[in-house]
Amino acid sequence: MPALRQAPEWTVSDWLNAGDPPPGLARLRGRIVYVLAFQMLCPGCAAHAIPQALRVRAAFSENDLAVIGLHTVFEHAQAQGPKEALAAFLHEYKVRFPVAIDAPSAGGGVPRTMGAYNMQGTPTTILIDREGRLRLQRFGHVDDLSLGAMIAAMLGAAPGESAN
Amino acid sequence: MPALRQAPEWTVSDWLNAGDPPPGLARLRGRIVYVLAFQMLCPGCAAHAIPQALRVRAAFSENDLAVIGLHTVFEHAQAQGPKEALAAFLHEYKVRFPVAIDAPSAGGGVPRTMGAYNMQGTPTTILIDREGRLRLQRFGHVDDLSLGAMIAAMLGAAPGESAN
Amino acid sequence: MPALRQAPEWTVSDWLNAGDPPPGLARLRGRIVYVLAFQMLCPGCAAHAIPQALRVRAAFSENDLAVIGLHTVFEHAQAQGPKEALAAFLHEYKVRFPVAIDAPSAGGGVPRTMGAYNMQGTPTTILIDREGRLRLQRFGHVDDLSLGAMIAAMLGAAPGESAN
Amino acid sequence: MPALRQAPEWTVSDWLNAGDPPPGLARLRGRIVYVLAFQMLCPGCAAHAIPQALRVRAAFSENDLAVIGLHTVFEHAQAQGPKEALAAFLHEYKVRFPVAIDAPSAGGGVPRTMGAYNMQGTPTTILIDREGRLRLQRFGHVDDLSLGAMIAAMLGAAPGESAN
Repeated sequence: MPALRQAPEWTVSDWLNAGDPPPGLARLRGRIVYVLAFQMLCPGCAAHAIPQALRVRAAFSENDLAVIGLHTVFEHAQAQGPKEALAAFLHEYKVRFPVAIDAPSAGGGVPRTMGAYNMQGTPTTILIDREGRLRLQRFGHVDDLSLGAMIAAMLGAAPGESAN
Repeated sequence: MPALRQAPEWTVSDWLNAGDPPPGLARLRGRIVYVLAFQMLCPGCAAHAIPQALRVRAAFSENDLAVIGLHTVFEHAQAQGPKEALAAFLHEYKVRFPVAIDAPSAGGGVPRTMGAYNMQGTPTTILIDREGRLRLQRFGHVDDLSLGAMIAAMLGAAPGESAN
Repeated sequence: MPALRQAPEWTVSDWLNAGDPPPGLARLRGRIVYVLAFQMLCPGCAAHAIPQALRVRAAFSENDLAVIGLHTVFEHAQAQGPKEALAAFLHEYKVRFPVAIDAPSAGGGVPRTMGAYNMQGTPTTILIDREGRLRLQRFGHVDDLSLGAMIAAMLGAAPGESAN
Repeated sequence: MPALRQAPEWTVSDWLNAGDPPPGLARLRGRIVYVLAFQMLCPGCAAHAIPQALRVRAAFSENDLAVIGLHTVFEHAQAQGPKEALAAFLHEYKVRFPVAIDAPSAGGGVPRTMGAYNMQGTPTTILIDREGRLRLQRFGHVDDLSLGAMIAAMLGAAPGESAN
C-alpha cells in the first residue's frame, strides 16, 4: 500500500446538528470518517449527494462510521452564507448528522478547509481512516456500489457485522 | 364543460428574470399560462418540479405557453426570503423563465397569492387558459404524460405545430 | 398542415389479448391509434417502452385511443418467435392491450409490417389519426411530456375530458 | 460469528458463457462467489437485478469475485426453457459472465438448485465465501450500497485494491 498523507484538520466557523464540543478530526480518531462537502444551492448536491449521504448514514453504525457534512460555500456566499438558510435546508432534507460550516478565507477565495484539501468543487466525497489518513477524495458522482465497498473495506466489516 | 372561475390575479412583491413591465395575468391573456408555485428549499420542488418546469418550457413555444415560477415562501421565511438567495437558486438550476415572489401577507400567514388560490403547499402546478380561467391546480406530483396532454389540449396543438 | 400519407395496413400472423375479430386499422378508423412496435428481448423495450405504453393506456380512454402492441421480431427469431414465449412475457409485464405478431416475410428479412413502415428497429412508437393517417413514427425514446401532448393534440382533448 | 452452513452444490443441466469444464462451487473454492438467480421473463430481474449483476462484475476483479447467473425457471417453462431463448436474452442484455441453467426437478416442482437453497422466487442474490459457506441469500431488491459493502467485507478489500 502506498504512503498516505494525513487528512488536513477542518477549519470551520460554526456547526449545526453537533454537540458540544463539536466533532473534529482529532476527536474522531479511531473511527472511519465520511465527509460530504456540499453547497445547499448546488443541484447535484441536493438531488444526489445529500440523499447518498443519508443512505450511508442509515447503512453503517455510528460507532463504526462518522458521517459529517461540510458546507463549503465558494459561490453565492450572500445567498448561502446565513446559518439560518443552511439550518432550514438541513431541516427540509432531513439531515441530522453534524454539518460544519467551512471558514471563509481571509483573502476571499475558496473557504479554508476546501482550500486545504484542494477540492475542485461540490459535491466532494472524502473518506478518512481510523488513523486519520486521507483514503478517498472524489469530486462529483460516486456510485453506491463502490462507495459501500470502500467504506466496508476500511471497516473490515459489512453493515450489521461487528467491525472487529 | 362545467363553469370555470377566473384565476385570481397574482399579488407579488418582486420579480426575477422578468422584463419591465413584468408579466401579469392580464398581460398574458390570450396565451396559456403554466405556473409552478415552489419554495427553493422544498426537496420535491428542487428535485422534480423545477426540472419538470424546465422540460415544459423546452417543449412548448413561448408564443403558445407562458411559463411562470411563483416563489411562495410559507416556511423558513428568513432563510428563503432574501432575493439574492432566490436569484442564486435560479442561476444554479438554470431557470430563465420569469419568477414572481409572492407578496407576504400583512397578518403573517401564507403569502397573498398562495392564499388567494388556497394552495395546500409546494409544489403546486397551475394551468390557466387563454381567457384567464383556472383549468388545473394540483398539489404535489403531476406526471409528464398527463401534463403534456393537458397543455396540448388547451393549446389545441402539439409542440412544434402551429396552435391555430 | 402538410399532406400526410395513410398508415399502411398491418400484416400480422396472430394476435394475443385480442377479441374476435381482432382489431385492424380499418376497424379502428375513427379512433386515435397508438402502436408500440417492440421485441420481448429488446432491453429498451422491456425497461422503458412497455412501461410507457402501459402509462399511455392508463391515461387515455379506450374510446378515444386504441393502444396496440406489435411484436416485430427481426432478431433471435427462434427465441422470440414462439407465441407461448410472448404470452408469458405479456403476462409478466401485465400487458393487457392487444398485441399483434408481425408476419414473417417470405424472403426472410424483417417482418412484413416492419418492412411496410420502414422501421429502423425497436422500440418504435407510431401514432395514427382518426382518418388513418400516419402522424408520428419515432425510433427509440419518446419523452412522456411530448407523447402526452401529441396524443392530446390529435384527440383535441386532455385525459378525462370528453373528446368533443 | 455464528456457525455458517456450506452452500449447497449447484445441480445444473447446462451452461452458457462457460468454459470447459464449467465452474462449480468446488472449483471456485478460494474465491468469493456472487450468484444471481433469475428468470429472463421476470421484469424485476431484467430491469434491476441483471443490470446490478453487470455493475458488480465491472466493479470487482475476476480474481477476487466470481459472478454466476443461475436461470431458475419455475414459471412459463415452455417459454423460458429453450436454451436459444436464454442465449438471445444474454446477448441482448450483454451478459458475458457464466450462466447455469438450473436442472428441472423430476417431480415437476421448482428446479433442483432453487429447491436445495429453498429460494422464494426471483431475483435472489447469493454470496458464498472463500470456504464455500453461504453468507447471504436475499429475495428481491438488494441496494447497491449494502451489496458493495458486503462483498468488500468478504474480500477484505475495496475494488481496485489487492485482496491480501
